[in-house]
Amino acid sequence: MNKSSLLELLAEVQLGSVSPEQASARLATLPFEDLDYAKIDHHRSLRNGLPEVIYAAGKSAEHTAEIFSRMAATGIDVLATRADEATAAAVLAITPAARYHQQARAITLRQSPAAEPLGHIAILCAGTSDLYAAEEAAVTAELFGTKVTRLYDVGVAGLHRLMAQRDSLVTADAVIVCAGMEGALPSVVGGLVGVPVIAVPTSVGYGASFAGAAALLGMLNSCSPNVCVVNIDNGFGAAYTATLIARAASR
Amino acid sequence: MNKSSLLELLAEVQLGSVSPEQASARLATLPFEDLDYAKIDHHRSLRNGLPEVIYAAGKSAEHTAEIFSRMAATGIDVLATRADEATAAAVLAITPAARYHQQARAITLRQSPAAEPLGHIAILCAGTSDLYAAEEAAVTAELFGTKVTRLYDVGVAGLHRLMAQRDSLVTADAVIVCAGMEGALPSVVGGLVGVPVIAVPTSVGYGASFAGAAALLGMLNSCSPNVCVVNIDNGFGAAYTATLIARAASR
Amino acid sequence: MNKSSLLELLAEVQLGSVSPEQASARLATLPFEDLDYAKIDHHRSLRNGLPEVIYAAGKSAEHTAEIFSRMAATGIDVLATRADEATAAAVLAITPAARYHQQARAITLRQSPAAEPLGHIAILCAGTSDLYAAEEAAVTAELFGTKVTRLYDVGVAGLHRLMAQRDSLVTADAVIVCAGMEGALPSVVGGLVGVPVIAVPTSVGYGASFAGAAALLGMLNSCSPNVCVVNIDNGFGAAYTATLIARAASR
Amino acid sequence: MNKSSLLELLAEVQLGSVSPEQASARLATLPFEDLDYAKIDHHRSLRNGLPEVIYAAGKSAEHTAEIFSRMAATGIDVLATRADEATAAAVLAITPAARYHQQARAITLRQSPAAEPLGHIAILCAGTSDLYAAEEAAVTAELFGTKVTRLYDVGVAGLHRLMAQRDSLVTADAVIVCAGMEGALPSVVGGLVGVPVIAVPTSVGYGASFAGAAALLGMLNSCSPNVCVVNIDNGFGAAYTATLIARAASR
Amino acid sequence: MNKSSLLELLAEVQLGSVSPEQASARLATLPFEDLDYAKIDHHRSLRNGLPEVIYAAGKSAEHTAEIFSRMAATGIDVLATRADEATAAAVLAITPAARYHQQARAITLRQSPAAEPLGHIAILCAGTSDLYAAEEAAVTAELFGTKVTRLYDVGVAGLHRLMAQRDSLVTADAVIVCAGMEGALPSVVGGLVGVPVIAVPTSVGYGASFAGAAALLGMLNSCSPNVCVVNIDNGFGAAYTATLIARAASR
Amino acid sequence: MNKSSLLELLAEVQLGSVSPEQASARLATLPFEDLDYAKIDHHRSLRNGLPEVIYAAGKSAEHTAEIFSRMAATGIDVLATRADEATAAAVLAITPAARYHQQARAITLRQSPAAEPLGHIAILCAGTSDLYAAEEAAVTAELFGTKVTRLYDVGVAGLHRLMAQRDSLVTADAVIVCAGMEGALPSVVGGLVGVPVIAVPTSVGYGASFAGAAALLGMLNSCSPNVCVVNIDNGFGAAYTATLIARAASR
Amino acid sequence: MNKSSLLELLAEVQLGSVSPEQASARLATLPFEDLDYAKIDHHRSLRNGLPEVIYAAGKSAEHTAEIFSRMAATGIDVLATRADEATAAAVLAITPAARYHQQARAITLRQSPAAEPLGHIAILCAGTSDLYAAEEAAVTAELFGTKVTRLYDVGVAGLHRLMAQRDSLVTADAVIVCAGMEGALPSVVGGLVGVPVIAVPTSVGYGASFAGAAALLGMLNSCSPNVCVVNIDNGFGAAYTATLIARAASR
Amino acid sequence: MNKSSLLELLAEVQLGSVSPEQASARLATLPFEDLDYAKIDHHRSLRNGLPEVIYAAGKSAEHTAEIFSRMAATGIDVLATRADEATAAAVLAITPAARYHQQARAITLRQSPAAEPLGHIAILCAGTSDLYAAEEAAVTAELFGTKVTRLYDVGVAGLHRLMAQRDSLVTADAVIVCAGMEGALPSVVGGLVGVPVIAVPTSVGYGASFAGAAALLGMLNSCSPNVCVVNIDNGFGAAYTATLIARAASR
Repeated sequence: MNKSSLLELLAEVQLGSVSPEQASARLATLPFEDLDYAKIDHHRSLRNGLPEVIYAAGKSAEHTAEIFSRMAATGIDVLATRADEATAAAVLAITPAARYHQQARAITLRQSPAAEPLGHIAILCAGTSDLYAAEEAAVTAELFGTKVTRLYDVGVAGLHRLMAQRDSLVTADAVIVCAGMEGALPSVVGGLVGVPVIAVPTSVGYGASFAGAAALLGMLNSCSPNVCVVNIDNGFGAAYTATLIARAASR
Repeated sequence: MNKSSLLELLAEVQLGSVSPEQASARLATLPFEDLDYAKIDHHRSLRNGLPEVIYAAGKSAEHTAEIFSRMAATGIDVLATRADEATAAAVLAITPAARYHQQARAITLRQSPAAEPLGHIAILCAGTSDLYAAEEAAVTAELFGTKVTRLYDVGVAGLHRLMAQRDSLVTADAVIVCAGMEGALPSVVGGLVGVPVIAVPTSVGYGASFAGAAALLGMLNSCSPNVCVVNIDNGFGAAYTATLIARAASR
Repeated sequence: MNKSSLLELLAEVQLGSVSPEQASARLATLPFEDLDYAKIDHHRSLRNGLPEVIYAAGKSAEHTAEIFSRMAATGIDVLATRADEATAAAVLAITPAARYHQQARAITLRQSPAAEPLGHIAILCAGTSDLYAAEEAAVTAELFGTKVTRLYDVGVAGLHRLMAQRDSLVTADAVIVCAGMEGALPSVVGGLVGVPVIAVPTSVGYGASFAGAAALLGMLNSCSPNVCVVNIDNGFGAAYTATLIARAASR
Repeated sequence: MNKSSLLELLAEVQLGSVSPEQASARLATLPFEDLDYAKIDHHRSLRNGLPEVIYAAGKSAEHTAEIFSRMAATGIDVLATRADEATAAAVLAITPAARYHQQARAITLRQSPAAEPLGHIAILCAGTSDLYAAEEAAVTAELFGTKVTRLYDVGVAGLHRLMAQRDSLVTADAVIVCAGMEGALPSVVGGLVGVPVIAVPTSVGYGASFAGAAALLGMLNSCSPNVCVVNIDNGFGAAYTATLIARAASR
Repeated sequence: MNKSSLLELLAEVQLGSVSPEQASARLATLPFEDLDYAKIDHHRSLRNGLPEVIYAAGKSAEHTAEIFSRMAATGIDVLATRADEATAAAVLAITPAARYHQQARAITLRQSPAAEPLGHIAILCAGTSDLYAAEEAAVTAELFGTKVTRLYDVGVAGLHRLMAQRDSLVTADAVIVCAGMEGALPSVVGGLVGVPVIAVPTSVGYGASFAGAAALLGMLNSCSPNVCVVNIDNGFGAAYTATLIARAASR
Repeated sequence: MNKSSLLELLAEVQLGSVSPEQASARLATLPFEDLDYAKIDHHRSLRNGLPEVIYAAGKSAEHTAEIFSRMAATGIDVLATRADEATAAAVLAITPAARYHQQARAITLRQSPAAEPLGHIAILCAGTSDLYAAEEAAVTAELFGTKVTRLYDVGVAGLHRLMAQRDSLVTADAVIVCAGMEGALPSVVGGLVGVPVIAVPTSVGYGASFAGAAALLGMLNSCSPNVCVVNIDNGFGAAYTATLIARAASR
Repeated sequence: MNKSSLLELLAEVQLGSVSPEQASARLATLPFEDLDYAKIDHHRSLRNGLPEVIYAAGKSAEHTAEIFSRMAATGIDVLATRADEATAAAVLAITPAARYHQQARAITLRQSPAAEPLGHIAILCAGTSDLYAAEEAAVTAELFGTKVTRLYDVGVAGLHRLMAQRDSLVTADAVIVCAGMEGALPSVVGGLVGVPVIAVPTSVGYGASFAGAAALLGMLNSCSPNVCVVNIDNGFGAAYTATLIARAASR
Repeated sequence: MNKSSLLELLAEVQLGSVSPEQASARLATLPFEDLDYAKIDHHRSLRNGLPEVIYAAGKSAEHTAEIFSRMAATGIDVLATRADEATAAAVLAITPAARYHQQARAITLRQSPAAEPLGHIAILCAGTSDLYAAEEAAVTAELFGTKVTRLYDVGVAGLHRLMAQRDSLVTADAVIVCAGMEGALPSVVGGLVGVPVIAVPTSVGYGASFAGAAALLGMLNSCSPNVCVVNIDNGFGAAYTATLIARAASR
C-alpha cells in the first residue's frame, strides 16, 4: 500500500463507502505481516513514499520469492536487489510480471500506474567494471519514478570524455558517481556541478584497493563539499537518497 | 562575488551603466586572485551559488586573516571553519564586521542583504560532546540562508527524548545527524523521516571508537536507505549538501 | 558427568554404597579422556555447571562424531556448534538421539531429566539475516535449561516494531541482541531495559561492514552502560553468559 | 530521584499527604531538566535503578560542576567519571560533600542511606599499570552498593600469584578483569570460575598493543565461554553490568 | 651437501684422494643449480648446517617434485612444507623414499645417517585445531635431528591440563607454543620456564580473530620477556630457530 | 666528494701530481667516517651521482649540525631534510654558508660550481596545505641541479585551474604531484601527460584521511598507468627519483 | 592509431592525398568508439605513445575478445592483462595473430613493424613465486619495445645470488623489483644502482603478509631514495613507467 | 635474591648456620613483597636466573624509585627500562649506586660479583635513529652478564657497510637486529649467519611506517627462517631471549 492508495482508502471512508471500522481493520493488519522468518513492514512505504525493497543476498531463493509475492499482493511496486539468476528464476516463477535486470542484479515489479518522472538524476561510472553498481542505482531510481541519464566510462584519467558530457550533468537535480580503484571521480564531478553528488565506492580493483576501501576513503576525503558517500557497492541506497532529492527539487 | 551580484553586474551592462569591456575586465580578474601561497577561486561561488569558505586548520592565523579580508573585499559572504581563538582574533582585527562562533569554531561575515530563509533543515546530535560538529553545521547552514532547527542531546539510549522531538523532525527538508561512539542515531532517525539524512560521524569517544572510525563505519552500514555520510567531524560539508537539498525543495 | 550426578556419586559414598576408593577411581579417570587428538575435559562441566560443548568448525565430521559420542556416553547433555549438514549426519549416525538444528547450525543431545527452566532470557535480532546467530544462542540457552523468548526482525530503522515488543523485553533476566551492519540495536535495547545486554555482532552486511567489524566496533562503543560484547557471530558464548546471569537471578 | 524515593512519593499520594496533581507536577519536571547544553535525564535512574553518571572527558570543568550540582540537588547518588584534578576541584567547590578518587579519576557523591551491599564482585588487574581502570570499576561498583574484592597485579606470567587468590575468586557473583598488553588474564580466570567474567581491555602497552586493540582482540577471542567484553578502559561500564548481575544473584 | 659431507670432501683433499682442482670444480657447480624457474641454493645448507627446505604453496606439484628430486640427488635431507595431497603424490612418485606427514602437510626425506638427537624442544598447542602448525614444527625439528616432546590441547581455559605436564616442559632447551584465538598460552608458558619460547600464532578462530591477527598481536605484547614470535602458522620457522637454540644448548 | 671531484683526483693521479698511494689513502678514509653515533657514507654520492642527504627528524640539533659540517668539509653539496628552526640555527651557526628553506623544512649547502640545469620537472600540489611537501621536493631537485616549475593549488575540484596550466605540464621530463585528502590529482595529471608521474601523498586532511593513508591508497590504485608512489610526505624521495629521470631524459 | 600513423595521416594531408576534411572526419570518429558497454579511447595511445591496454579481470571472455579485436582493427599493438586461459582462448579465436603468455597472464598482439629496442630495463624478482608479476612486467615492456633483462630468484636471504648478477643491473636505465613477503629487495637493489627502481609488491606470502600489504608497506618505507612503488601485483604499471624512463634515457 | 644467593642460603642450612625455620621464613616472605600498589615477585629471578626488571613507563618517578630500592635491598641486580630523566633522578637519589644510561633510557644496578661473560651476542641497528632500541638491548644484555658486540648504522641500502662487519657477526651465539622503516635488515642478516636472529622493529619512520607496524610486518614475513620477532621497540625482550640463547650455547 503506498501513499496514494492510503489516501484513496481514506477518501472512501470520507465518502462512506468504507466504514471507519473496516478501514481500521485493513490498516491494522498491515504493519507486520508475519512470514514467520521475516516481518514485512508495509508502513515504511507509507512513511517514505517509496516502494518496498528486498535485500536478496543471504536469503534463499525461495524466501525471497515468497516475500516478493506477498509484497506484490498488496499492489505496491516491489524491488529486490542483489538477486542472482537462481533467485530471479524463483521470483519470476511465482510472479511472472516481475522483470530481472541482469547487470543490476535486481528484480522489479511495477504495479503503480505510469506517470511523469519526478525529477532527474545523472548516474556516472568511472569504468566499465563499475557498471553493476551504476545499474543497480539506475534500475532503482527508474522504478521509483525518476528520470535517469547514464554517463558511463568517464574516468578521471581521460578527462576529455567527462568534459564532453558536461551538458548532461548540469541539468540533473542530483548526481550519483560510482567509482572503484582511487575513487577520484566524485571530487572532479563535484567541482563541475552545483547539486548534491552521492558517491558510491565500488569494490572494483585489486591489491591496495582492499575491496573498495581505498575508493571509500578517497570519497570521504573529497575536497568538493557537495559530495556525500554511501557504503561500498550500495547503488540502491544512492538511488534512494538521490530520488528523494530529485523529487523535492521537482515539486 | 555571488550569483546575484553577477546578475546585477550583467544588468548594469544591459542598462549601459557598465561597458562590456569594464565588465569583462572585472570578471577576468576574478578567477585566480593570486596571494602567492593560495589561489582564491571566486568562480566557485558563481558555479554553486554558495559563499566562499576557508579551511583554517593548518593555516597560520595571518594567512587566514589575509585570505578572509581579500574575500571580504569582493562583497561576498565569507566563512572560515576550524578556526581557533588566535585565528579568530587575527581575522577580527582586520575584518571587524566578522563574527566568531566559539563552539562551532567558525568565523562568519554576512554581507549579502537579509532575506527569507530558503528551505529548512534539522540538525541533531547524540550527546553534548558532539555539539562542536553540530554547531559547525548550523552556523554554516545559517550563513548560507537556510532555516535551522537544533535538536541536541537526543541519543539512542534514551529514545523518549528523540521521540518527544519527532514533530520538528518531520517538517525538515533534510536532516543532519552528528554522532560519535557507535553512531547509531542516523539509522534511527532515517527510519522516522522521509527526507535525506546526512550523517556526520564525530571523533567523540575513546578506545575502540578509534577517533570516529567506529561511528563512520556504523553510519556507512546503516539499514536506513536514506542515510548518506560525510567525513568524520565534517559538519561543514553536511551543511553544504543539506543546504543544496533544502534549497531545491523550497524552490 | 554434571554437578548433580557428582552429588549423587558423593551421596552414594556417604551412604556407603560406593566406597571412597571406587569414587576416587571414577573421578580420577575423568579429567583427560584421551582421544589421541583431543583431550576431553569432563571437569569443566563440574566447574561451571553447564554441558560440554564441541566447536565443530575445522574438525572433520568423523572426529566431531567420535568426540560427541564419547561425551554422550558419560550421560551428560552435549552440544556441538558450527556443525554443517555433513557433520550432523555423521553425529546422528552414531548418536541417533541427537538432534540437528539447521538454522542454528547446532547439534544437541539432551540426557538430563526434564526440569523447570532456570531463568529467562530474551533474544533479539535486527534482521532476518541475523537469524543464524540468534538461533545458535537460543538453542544453546534452551539446552542449558533457560527459558528463551525470541524477538526477531526488530531493527532500529523501524522502531515501532521493537516498541511493540517492549513488554516481553522487560521481564527477561538478561537480553541477547544479535545485529550486523551498523550494530545499533543493542544501544537502543540497553536504554529500554534494566538488565545486562549481551551484544552479538554478526558478519551480516557488505562493503564497509568488513565482515562484522563495523557492528563489533559499534557495540563496543555503545552509549548504554549495560551492554557488553562477545565475538562476531558468537551466539554460543552470549547464551553461555546470559544463562549464568539468568540462573543467578532465578535462584 | 531513584526508585525508592519514587515509591515514597507515590506512597505519600496514597496517604493523601501529596495530591496527585502535585505528584504529577513533580514527576513532569523531571525528565528533561534543560541546562541548555545538556538534557539531564532523571528518568534513567528510575528505569535502571542505578545512579546518574556524568562522563566528564571533553566537558569543561565548569559544565561538569554545574551538571553535578544540579543532579545532587535531586537527592540521588552522583558519579562523574574521567574527571581530572581541575574538574574535581570545580565540582568540590560547589558540592563539598563529593569525594575525588584520584587513581580512579572519579568523583562520587553518596546521598542514599547506608545499606547492606547487594551482591559481590571481584575485580582483578594484570599489572599495576592497569590500576586506573580497575579502580574506576571498583569505585563505580561501590557507589552502586556492591561489595568489591580487589585482586591486583595477578598477571598470567606469574600464575602462582593468581592461584594464591583463587578462594576469593570463587565466591564472587561476577568478576571484572582488567588487562592490557596481550589481554590473556580473562581467559585464564574464565576457566577458574563459574560466573560471568567482564573483560576490560586497557590501553596499557606500547608498539603492537595499538593502544589496547591487541588486548581487546584477545579478549573477544577468548576460549572461555563465560567472558564478555567492554570498550578499552571502560571500567565504568564493566562495573555497571557486573553490578546488575550481582544484584540479580543476591536477590 | 651438508657440513659433514663438505668436511669429508676437504679431508679427501687433505689425504690426496681428491685434487684441489676436482674439489673446487665440485664446489663451484653447487651454488646455483639452475632449474630455469628456480635457483637451488645448496650453499645455505653449508652456512646454516640445516637441510634444504621447499615451500610448496603456490608451486605446481610438478615443480615441487622436480626441485625435491634434484635436492635429493645431492644426498642431503630434504623437507617440503605446505604440501597438499596432490603434491605429495607427485613427489613420492619420483622420490619413493620420501614420506608424507598429512597433519603437518609436510614431505620429508631423510638421507643422513641415524644419530643421537641434538637438543630437546617441547611443542605445545592450545587446542586440537592448532595441531597442523604444531605438527609442521614437530616434523621439521625431528628431521633436523632434534628430540621433540608434544604437549597438545593444553589451552589456558583449563590450566590444570597444562600444569599436569609441567615436568616435561622444564627439561626442554626451547619451547614452541602454537595458539590461535586469543593467543594467551605463550605468556603463561613463558612464566613457567626459563628457556626461550617461540610463539606461533595460528589462523584458527573466527570473527575478530582476523585469521590469526588477534593471536599474533597478543603474542607480540606478551608480558613474559622470554617470548618471541614468528609469522602466523609458521611452524617451520619456529622449529628452525628452536633447533638452532637446542643444538647450541646441547653442544 | 662527488663524481667530478673523484675524476679530478684520478686525473691528478694520471698527471702524476698525486701518487696512487696518496689517492688510495684518501679514498680509503672516505667510506665510513665514523662520528661514533653515525657512519657517514661518502661513497653513496659516488654511486648515485647525487649529494649526500641528512634526515634530521629524530636527530638532535647538535648531531645534525656536526654531521652537516663534516659533510660540508668534503666539498660536496649537502642537504638536510625535516629540519626545524632550532636545527637550522645550529647548522647555520657552524656552517654559515648553508641556507634554510622554512616552508620546505630543508637546509641546503651548494658548493659545486654553477651549471646548466639537467632536465626539467614540474611539481604540482592540490592545495596550499600541501606546500610543505611540494617545497621539500622543489628545494631538493633544485639542489640536485634540476629545473623546477611549480604549479600550486590546482586541485581536482577546480579543474579549470589545472587546465590553465597544462602547457607547463607537457614540457616536463617528469612530474611530481603532492596531494592529501582524496589524493585524486595524480590520476588526472597522469591522464594529461606522457611522462612518469611521481605521486606524493601528504598527511593533510582530517578524520578518515588517517594522516595520509587515504591519499596513499588512492594513488596506489590510480587508473593512470604512469603513476608511481612514494611514502606519505616524502617530497625528498620524489625529487630524487624525478631528478634521475629528468637527467636521463636530458642526456 | 599510434603516433607514427597519425603523423603519416598528417603528412598525407600535407601532400594533398588526404583532404583536411577527410582527415578531420577520420580523427573525429576515433576518440570514443562506443561498444555500448565500454568507450574505447584511441586517443590515449596518441597522448602517451604507448599501446592500448585491456584489463581483462572482471570482464567476460567475450567482452575482452570483442574489445581486443576492435582495437586490433585499428592497426595498433594491443595488450590484455590479467587474462585467464578461457579469455585467451576467446581472444585467439577471433584474433589468431595474438599470443598468450601463460605465466604473465597476458595476451599480446604486435602489429607495429620490428624496431630496435628503445632503452633497457632489468626486472628482478625475489623468489619463484613472484614470477607472475615479473613476467607481466616483462611481457608488457617487451611489447612496448623495451629491452628486458630478467634476474629472477635473487632474494635478500641469499645476497650472493644477487651480487653475482650485479653487472647486469648497473647497465639498465631503470629497474623493476617484484617481491612479496617482507619486500626487502628493492631497498637492497636501490643501494646498488644509480637509476630509478620501481618496486612491485606481490601478494605472495601468508599470515601477516596480508596479501601483499606487508611488502607494500616495506617498499613505501624504503631507505633507498630512488625507490618508488606501484600497487600490489601491478607488473603492468611498473613496466609502463619503466618504459617511459628507459625511452627518455635512450633518446 | 638470585639463584646463587639461594644456593648459599641452602648451603648455610646444610651447614647448620641457618636453621630450616629461619630459611623457610626468609623464603616465605619473598614471593609477594607487597608495596600496596605492586606485588614484587622475587621468585621470577629464581625461576629464570635473570635479574628483576621494572617497566618504568606509566609509573610515577616515586613509585619506580621505591620499587627499585626495595629490590636493591634484596641484593640482586636491578634493571629499570623506559626511564626518563626525572625517573632516573628519583632512583639515583635513593639508590646512588645505580647508573643511568641515557640513550638506552635504562637504569641499572649491579650488585652481583664480577664474572666472565656467559655467551656472546651481536646487536645491529640499521640507522642511527634506531640506537635507542639497540642500546636498551645492549645495556640489558650486559647487565645479564652477556658479551655484546655493537654493529650500528649498517642498513641494507649500503650493503658494503654490513659486509665489512661480517666477521664479527659469525662468532656471535645470537644476533639482535633493530630496524625501523622497511625492516629489511633482519632478513639480510639471517641469510649471513647460522644462529637465531631476534628482530626488533623500531618505531622509527614516518607516514606509512605507521609507528613501526611496517617494520614489524616485514620482519614477521622474513624469508630467512632463523628470524623471530619481538614487539616494536622491545630491545629489552630481545636481549632477554638472546641472553638465554647465548648462555645455553656457552654452557
